[in-house]
Amino acid sequence: MEQTKIILDENEMPRQWYNILPDLSSPIEPPLDPRTWEPISPEALEPIFAKGLIKQEMSSERFIDIPEEILEIYKLWRPSPLYRAHRLEKLLKTPAKIYYKNEGVSPAGSHKTNTSIAQAYYNMKEGNERLTTETGAGQWGSALALACNYFDLECKVYMVRSSYYQKPYRKSLMTIWGGNVVPSPSSDTEFGRKIQKEQPDTPGSLGIAISEAVEDAIAHDSTKYSLGSVLNHVMLHQTVIGAECKKQLEQVETYPDIVIGCCGGGSNLAGISLEFIKDRLEGKNSPRVIAVEPSACPSLTKGEYRYDFGDTAEMTPLLKMYTLGHEHVPPAIHAGGLRYHGDSPIISKLCAEGLIEAVSYDQCPVFDAAIQFARTEGIVPAPESSHAIRCAIDEALKCKQTGEEKTILFNLSGHGHFDMSSYDKYFNKELT
Amino acid sequence: MEQTKIILDENEMPRQWYNILPDLSSPIEPPLDPRTWEPISPEALEPIFAKGLIKQEMSSERFIDIPEEILEIYKLWRPSPLYRAHRLEKLLKTPAKIYYKNEGVSPAGSHKTNTSIAQAYYNMKEGNERLTTETGAGQWGSALALACNYFDLECKVYMVRSSYYQKPYRKSLMTIWGGNVVPSPSSDTEFGRKIQKEQPDTPGSLGIAISEAVEDAIAHDSTKYSLGSVLNHVMLHQTVIGAECKKQLEQVETYPDIVIGCCGGGSNLAGISLEFIKDRLEGKNSPRVIAVEPSACPSLTKGEYRYDFGDTAEMTPLLKMYTLGHEHVPPAIHAGGLRYHGDSPIISKLCAEGLIEAVSYDQCPVFDAAIQFARTEGIVPAPESSHAIRCAIDEALKCKQTGEEKTILFNLSGHGHFDMSSYDKYFNKELT
Repeated sequence: MEQTKIILDENEMPRQWYNILPDLSSPIEPPLDPRTWEPISPEALEPIFAKGLIKQEMSSERFIDIPEEILEIYKLWRPSPLYRAHRLEKLLKTPAKIYYKNEGVSPAGSHKTNTSIAQAYYNMKEGNERLTTETGAGQWGSALALACNYFDLECKVYMVRSSYYQKPYRKSLMTIWGGNVVPSPSSDTEFGRKIQKEQPDTPGSLGIAISEAVEDAIAHDSTKYSLGSVLNHVMLHQTVIGAECKKQLEQVETYPDIVIGCCGGGSNLAGISLEFIKDRLEGKNSPRVIAVEPSACPSLTKGEYRYDFGDTAEMTPLLKMYTLGHEHVPPAIHAGGLRYHGDSPIISKLCAEGLIEAVSYDQCPVFDAAIQFARTEGIVPAPESSHAIRCAIDEALKCKQTGEEKTILFNLSGHGHFDMSSYDKYFNKELT
Repeated sequence: MEQTKIILDENEMPRQWYNILPDLSSPIEPPLDPRTWEPISPEALEPIFAKGLIKQEMSSERFIDIPEEILEIYKLWRPSPLYRAHRLEKLLKTPAKIYYKNEGVSPAGSHKTNTSIAQAYYNMKEGNERLTTETGAGQWGSALALACNYFDLECKVYMVRSSYYQKPYRKSLMTIWGGNVVPSPSSDTEFGRKIQKEQPDTPGSLGIAISEAVEDAIAHDSTKYSLGSVLNHVMLHQTVIGAECKKQLEQVETYPDIVIGCCGGGSNLAGISLEFIKDRLEGKNSPRVIAVEPSACPSLTKGEYRYDFGDTAEMTPLLKMYTLGHEHVPPAIHAGGLRYHGDSPIISKLCAEGLIEAVSYDQCPVFDAAIQFARTEGIVPAPESSHAIRCAIDEALKCKQTGEEKTILFNLSGHGHFDMSSYDKYFNKELT
């Protein structure tokens, strides 16, 4: 049997991030100032973000060196293993070869640490002392708490209310690393208090939590805001995933026909796919790329491609993206990390140009896939990542119909150890 | 900086288990029949255990080949990484070098899968269809549920009541892999019903849960019992840990001065240390080996070395071991996996002969160490494993006093993702 895990040594870890911006067919539409709707200057972003990150957000360099201090922390879990899903293939009786990248091996349990470490680093370098953020499922908040711990920054996390109560142990995890977590809407910000008053029963949303975190950052000294997805610099930091996958697949002399990632804001999908889309943009052979969304929050499959705010309170710059509207509050599904009204501008542009396809699934078939995966590959996947599993299984089943031996690669963006209440609801048939 | 993770390829995985029995200074004292107190015959164990495991329990072969089917499943997570704890060393300002073996990378989150896979395999080979077991913290029950899933066996888990309610999501995990879990004492066995009646408020104990699981196995066809620690064949299966460590340390040209493992029944300690004790028995240079117990259940440090039952109902064979007495019910501490009145006969004998030292710690200093570890190495450790961390830190601090550059190796037997309620209690200062 071909090997199960394809691993790389630490010294084979990518030392540069890949920036797709200069490779795009046309420049990406700039963010707009929320007050004037005119393109925003880098300086105007400085009250919110570290300068080093703003520079990356708008960079025209194709490759950006990863600072040594970041590489040293990445080494705690990177390079992450690439798995051949022998047992899943056997269960499906498919001629397809299924590979998955296991980003769940990071201490916080997902790919989010790839950017949280980088963001905390640049903030520390510029003398900032505190970061604020929002979190949905808690994966991002955990990742930022871990990163702030390494660079001696305070970390304040506004956690979407529905997730805060569905996943109480995510809060515990953030606390272990020194993070300070409150349910959003909270009483710590003006906007949070307003929503609490107007919609006392709201499950919360990423849009609301972002507004709170941005307000907090602007209101406090030495404090910046940190976003776990959507922005260009976040996509940039995640490209280590795809770069590792490419090296790992070369080890077994293969190249994917299909690359799959779940998609909320777009970061894990960008992480695994941009390296392969680069091949397309260079005129080489390249795979189909599929974004998988929950049908309860179908921004790519049912949204409009236009400028919209990133948050509910209209405090963030406007971004050109697929959006369901910034006032949209998606139902409290169990893949909390995919409950975002918008999408990464990079992913949106690639979708609009046909370089990425998008599909959506209901919760139940996604959990069916998660159980099939857990009972074959062993690993219990996060509900978010299980969207990618569902799609990979369906593509493998299509190969069974056609007899094609396609190579399918998907991103297992995180483990589900903190999502047991969701699995309980699935087994109790309480999912809709 | 020397590398962080020392990894092995799948093809470097040990292909044999090391059996210490023939290397001991004198034969290990045999198990006694609970009715006659005479040495028990292999046949008399057959209603409880698979024959292949009974053979290993009493084997005189020094090395036993690991069947290919087991190796194929081990490959899902083995070889596990060995880490150099650079950041912990820096925090402690110690000249010591600290290494830890990360057994938390298995799908069930601990070293327990090394033996659960083997036990399920031999039972499947002999045509058994169902396994029963007990679990304390839930690590063992999860590991057996995973293993039974791979070999199409039913799995019934009696989970110590205090852990069942402290760690509800461990039950969810077992359910994902198809296991059937009940709190012990349960109403599913005669002994369980008796205890429920006599001690309605008992937190339960491993001793009680073992009695229930053994009664269930004897009472049902095609059903055997499976034990996650204590027995010789369990220690045998865990020796892959130490064999991998040795190869990994050779890669960085070092050899440990001290080897540390937490100790409940003894399996993770045996797993990491027997390979090094082999060196001692062969007359070579070898490390100090330290067993770390909770002071709430100090079998090695305060128990008596004598024959005792493995369970509360006096149904199991008697084993010569360090014991607090088989009727002892330890307090409901958070390291549920270390709440056992006895110890492995192999570990006990090595302790009695001075080849293993034992120390004990209270809960609070153990959680202090867990937090130091999580904030330096990133990984959130299980409370059980944190006993080993506490001891490793203390040994490293002694080196700081003396200036000695000792090499310390400890077993990180599992992660703490399902132990968040224990961490919450620690932060709320509710631990005693």
